[in-house]
Amino acid sequence: MRKTIVGVMGGSTADDRTAAAAKELGRLIAENGWVLLSGGRPTGVMQASVTGARLAGGLTLGVLYDDDHEEAAEGLDIVLPTGLGAGRNIINVLSSDVVVACRGQGGTLSEIALALRFGRPVVLLDFDPGAVFMDASAHGARWAMAGTPVEAAQKVREFLIELGRE
Amino acid sequence: MRKTIVGVMGGSTADDRTAAAAKELGRLIAENGWVLLSGGRPTGVMQASVTGARLAGGLTLGVLYDDDHEEAAEGLDIVLPTGLGAGRNIINVLSSDVVVACRGQGGTLSEIALALRFGRPVVLLDFDPGAVFMDASAHGARWAMAGTPVEAAQKVREFLIELGRE
Amino acid sequence: MRKTIVGVMGGSTADDRTAAAAKELGRLIAENGWVLLSGGRPTGVMQASVTGARLAGGLTLGVLYDDDHEEAAEGLDIVLPTGLGAGRNIINVLSSDVVVACRGQGGTLSEIALALRFGRPVVLLDFDPGAVFMDASAHGARWAMAGTPVEAAQKVREFLIELGRE
Amino acid sequence: MRKTIVGVMGGSTADDRTAAAAKELGRLIAENGWVLLSGGRPTGVMQASVTGARLAGGLTLGVLYDDDHEEAAEGLDIVLPTGLGAGRNIINVLSSDVVVACRGQGGTLSEIALALRFGRPVVLLDFDPGAVFMDASAHGARWAMAGTPVEAAQKVREFLIELGRE
Repeated sequence: MRKTIVGVMGGSTADDRTAAAAKELGRLIAENGWVLLSGGRPTGVMQASVTGARLAGGLTLGVLYDDDHEEAAEGLDIVLPTGLGAGRNIINVLSSDVVVACRGQGGTLSEIALALRFGRPVVLLDFDPGAVFMDASAHGARWAMAGTPVEAAQKVREFLIELGRE
Repeated sequence: MRKTIVGVMGGSTADDRTAAAAKELGRLIAENGWVLLSGGRPTGVMQASVTGARLAGGLTLGVLYDDDHEEAAEGLDIVLPTGLGAGRNIINVLSSDVVVACRGQGGTLSEIALALRFGRPVVLLDFDPGAVFMDASAHGARWAMAGTPVEAAQKVREFLIELGRE
Repeated sequence: MRKTIVGVMGGSTADDRTAAAAKELGRLIAENGWVLLSGGRPTGVMQASVTGARLAGGLTLGVLYDDDHEEAAEGLDIVLPTGLGAGRNIINVLSSDVVVACRGQGGTLSEIALALRFGRPVVLLDFDPGAVFMDASAHGARWAMAGTPVEAAQKVREFLIELGRE
Repeated sequence: MRKTIVGVMGGSTADDRTAAAAKELGRLIAENGWVLLSGGRPTGVMQASVTGARLAGGLTLGVLYDDDHEEAAEGLDIVLPTGLGAGRNIINVLSSDVVVACRGQGGTLSEIALALRFGRPVVLLDFDPGAVFMDASAHGARWAMAGTPVEAAQKVREFLIELGRE
């Protein structure tokens, strides 16, 4: 049976609090035996979540913006250059069983919107893009808010149970 | 000199008010001599805006979800199948000089977020996805709200003047 | 009814003979009332074909590798940045009613293979990638060789008649 | 350090000899500790190579044509739906350290051409698309022919040594 993939989205820059949360989230994803998928850049939420997952011995995948293997987060097991630029955002979303969105900007918000559009459950970790946006995206879609990485991992688990994957 | 492109985004379903506004917007885009670009499907905001532009003799482009020319809005001059699914949303955004967003859901919201992320000015026509979302996407980005198609066309013109294209 | 699109593929560098043929081909495409679609870069076969079509008053489209409007062939009417890199090759192919391939390398050959795979007729203009390749790609697909731009335009017309578009 | 990825390309249908070779190749990739990447469909060379790798306990990745996880080869560890259709071919190529091409048609040939274009070494396993095609794609690119899976794995290893990855 294929492995469960949890996508972690978030800004290419991150303040200390966001980076710490992303790292802790990465650790929890690994400890649950889920694969961590991210945009794979060596900065911000992407690097922090990969670092956390790696320290806990998890499997980590990065779907890169660029067309070579160079611009990758340290500690990634599997580096997938696409050369598609922001066109790769849709892959991040569609390939994830559940998406966790940390604080981010336009790129992250586009991924949240696409996840809701394509029926991937979304957990917002310490990030609130507004109920108007979430409701507009979300007719019938599933999403939840979480204040801490532990809460986020719990919400991910609940969505995976609903999906029959736990 | 290349032609100015105004992208019209919005739902694949549209209520009467939204469809009427999209049609009127299409007409105004054509009358201003701008090319209308949309997702090109034969439904909702896409079909309505194409219909309006065509009646006014404008040039209309559709960047399709599918891999053949069939599923296209009636009246499109130029039909561009991509086979990329929602991966084509980024093209809608990057190819537009200015984006006008009518009411829509996740697909439309992903396009707004990407437009703000990549510096394409956005006009929201009778559609408010929330200031929190817009501000989160928009550090330094340009956007405006419009209540009517006439106001939206005016905002588009102002952005084009800023861009040196009018 | 939508406009007929003829895609011109070929190298981003071109020797004098290839550039002259591409320019002449562009002129013939315009004179036949077809839209010229290319990869839209300001070099090689792309620039030459656009120049030819523009001199004859045709409509020209460029589907760009990059994510802004800057790196475009001079004379393009409609510039479509995609930011998809070589991921945009599939759009060149799928959006064309008929593809003409001038001399090129890997990028051009990938477009020929995809065209044959997706049932877009291909005309090879003074370019022979080998019958083994063409036959391997082409179970049931349509392609023809042409020694000159005039012959190529004639072959395009014949394919368009078969497709019911002329 | 990131894992080495060997991409296996080939037809979505395969005769017995090609399927047997793809399965054996998958086994050898796994035994060498390389990750097997393929288009991930449950047919032809894709399914056969995944089956071989899985029986040998290797890690297998599929980059899917479709937008959900359903249409995946049996035995895939990591299933990545892209929704990009043939637009995902470029990912197969760019994400591979070395590409092995089994017998295929237009899709496979487009991947060989892109691999040569982007500097990914190619091993042709019991498949010859013609020297004219390979040379046209290949100015300065690296490729080799192999008659058997054992020879193909040996060629892959040699290319990986050149790349400093073994």
